[in-house]
This record gives sequence, C-alpha cells and structure tokens, in this order.
Amino acid sequence: MKLVIGDKSNSSWSMRPWVLLRHFGIPFEETLIRLGQPDTKSKLLEVSPSGKVPCLVTDAGEAVWESLAIMETIAEMHPEHAMWPSDAAARARARSVSAEMHAGFADLRQNMPMEITTHAPGRGATPEALANIARIEAIWAACLAKSGGPFLFGAAFGIADAMFAPVVMRFNSYAPTLSATSLDYAKRITALPAVAAWIDSAREEAR
Amino acid sequence: MKLVIGDKSNSSWSMRPWVLLRHFGIPFEETLIRLGQPDTKSKLLEVSPSGKVPCLVTDAGEAVWESLAIMETIAEMHPEHAMWPSDAAARARARSVSAEMHAGFADLRQNMPMEITTHAPGRGATPEALANIARIEAIWAACLAKSGGPFLFGAAFGIADAMFAPVVMRFNSYAPTLSATSLDYAKRITALPAVAAWIDSAREEAR
Repeated sequence: MKLVIGDKSNSSWSMRPWVLLRHFGIPFEETLIRLGQPDTKSKLLEVSPSGKVPCLVTDAGEAVWESLAIMETIAEMHPEHAMWPSDAAARARARSVSAEMHAGFADLRQNMPMEITTHAPGRGATPEALANIARIEAIWAACLAKSGGPFLFGAAFGIADAMFAPVVMRFNSYAPTLSATSLDYAKRITALPAVAAWIDSAREEAR
Repeated sequence: MKLVIGDKSNSSWSMRPWVLLRHFGIPFEETLIRLGQPDTKSKLLEVSPSGKVPCLVTDAGEAVWESLAIMETIAEMHPEHAMWPSDAAARARARSVSAEMHAGFADLRQNMPMEITTHAPGRGATPEALANIARIEAIWAACLAKSGGPFLFGAAFGIADAMFAPVVMRFNSYAPTLSATSLDYAKRITALPAVAAWIDSAREEAR
C-alpha cells in the first residue's frame, strides 16, 4: 500500500491519512511529491485521478483519493481497529463533524494556512477565520463533553481526530485565543506520537 | 426519521439525501426551512448543530448533518439496499468521487448556482467553472466506462449519483457544452422518478 502525499509542512489534507495509518501501525510506503514545482502537476496526474494529494494506491493498484474517502477505505480494510466509534449514534456524529471539516472552514484555510514551521501569533485572524474557529471549538467542546474525552469520541484517537489534526497545527502556528478545553485537546493531539512524527518530518524537510 | 432541508429550488446539499431516501422508498418526514429569511438562522440552529441544511434527525432524536455523512449513515441503517457498490474497489472509487464532489468544485457552485426554475444557457461559464465541469465530465466518463453504466457504478442509482444530482440540475439550467456521454447521463438522472419528484416540488415552490 502506497500513500502519495505533498510536503509535510503544508499539505494539510495529506497529514490526515498519514497520521491515521501511522497511529494504528499499519505499514505503508510513502511517496512525497513536492508541491508548487514545475513538474508537480504532471507527477500528481500520474498517480492521482484528481491530480491532488493525498492519494492511496492499494496493493491491487487501485487509486483512492480525498482524505475522507481514503480513511473510510482504510477503516473498512482494517475492521480490527476502531477508527470510527463502535456506537452507531456516535459514529454518525463522527461522520458529521468529519464531513463538516472536509467541506468547510474555507476562511480558516485561506487565512491561516498550515505551515508547520511558522510561528506567527495573531496572523490571519480575520472575523471570518475567527468565526470558523468558534465553530470548531463548539464541535470539539460538544464531542469531548459527550464522549468524556480525551479524544473527540472517547478513549481512542480516530478518524474524526485525524480530520482536525491539521487545524491543531494551524492553532499552534497562529495561536488564536482558545478555550482551556480546546487548548488541552490541541496539546494532546500535538503530543500524539504519530502527529509528533509528522511534525518532526516537516521540520527536517524545511532544513 | 425527519430530514430537514432548505428550499428545493436552491438547496443543492439538501437534494442529495432527499433523492436517495425517496429513490429507495425509505419513509421519512420532511421539514423545509426557507433559506434567506430573517428567522432562517435561528430555525436552523434549533435542529442542526452546524446551523446548515440538510440535517437528519433520527427516531432516537440524534442529529446527523452534512449530506455525505447523512448518506453514509442511511446506508448503514439500510444494508438491504446497495447504496454503495458491493465491490470493495468500486466502493472506494465511489467514496473518492463523492468526497471530491463534497469538498470541491467551488467555482462551479459560485458561478452556476442551483436554481431549478432558471433556464439561462451560457450564464456563469467562467474559465474556472468550465475547468470544474471538465473534471466532472472526466469523473463521469471514467466511472461509466468502468462500470458499464447506466449509473456511475453500474445498474443501480446510488450515493455517488445522488452526490452529483445537483450538478445535473446546474447543467440543465446553464447548458454548458457537454460530451454525449455526459448529456445522456444527465438525462437519465433528470428522468429518475425521485429526481423528477424533487424538480416538480421545486417548480411548485416557485409558484
């Protein structure tokens, strides 16, 4: 199984399935295509039908693309791991917040791009980006209150947490004002070994 | 089970799960909240945690939101219906194109908004919208060629088709130049009884 990703410092969509696979100890080969280069587009189109990262190429040679679809597929391939909550109602909520993250928060993405090596508190804090952040904090607070934490849907890190991991990277860089609940959650995600490994690689990449 | 939707002429995201439920004959109660009214936001927030439509409220009173998450949840609740392809590789592709539609094609959405009662050939045909359309045509062509049609993943209408049904409505309104393959597929989707029922309701709504 091969996961095609973009630069670790910037490719927020790539981070999600990479962290999920790493966290669950599922072996995979990594192919990194540097973004923004003259040959980026042609390299991407060789492997990814959408011309975007991430793209998973299965052992049978089938391409699966879009972070959410890749993670749904990995969850199906590995029923021994509870990547989605086992309770049906919790699973429906986890899919709701994951799909909301997948399609939304354009202002946050635009104004506070994921740049793992950047530390620029206050940058990008437009009213629209702050409104996105308020909604994300409400999602986290509701999920953590309902599940009891420490992860969004309880004791175990899962797909919903992976969907929001790049947001945590943005919060680490731009340090918007956050509730204690959000700050604690962001710290737990940052400290997760799979996330720390991604951050370390992003820093090495920047050297 | 209750599905909260927006105006049928405009709410492209609402159309998807409505058409899916209707096509599979799954009984549901419909609550329509008119969009763009002074009390729209407060009405939405009463039922939908994200303040957006569509939102499914299960018999247990649980809210499920975002069209893709709602349809994943409906598919799980009704394993007797093959809403996703039964073949694992086809299912992974169906999820890939559905997630790509869920998160992408912003230029098409912006320049060719779903307005079922509008007929304005040529409107909104910006280069960016046309590039989105070219990618959608490539998706349809690849899926139909691989599955043999008449629907994206074979003989039966499913979630991937529901995801693209609002795009068909846009094509009907703005009539961009399309391949014969795309035109035929768009005609089949438009003629599907569940889609025709949605269109009829949108026209009645406009009277």
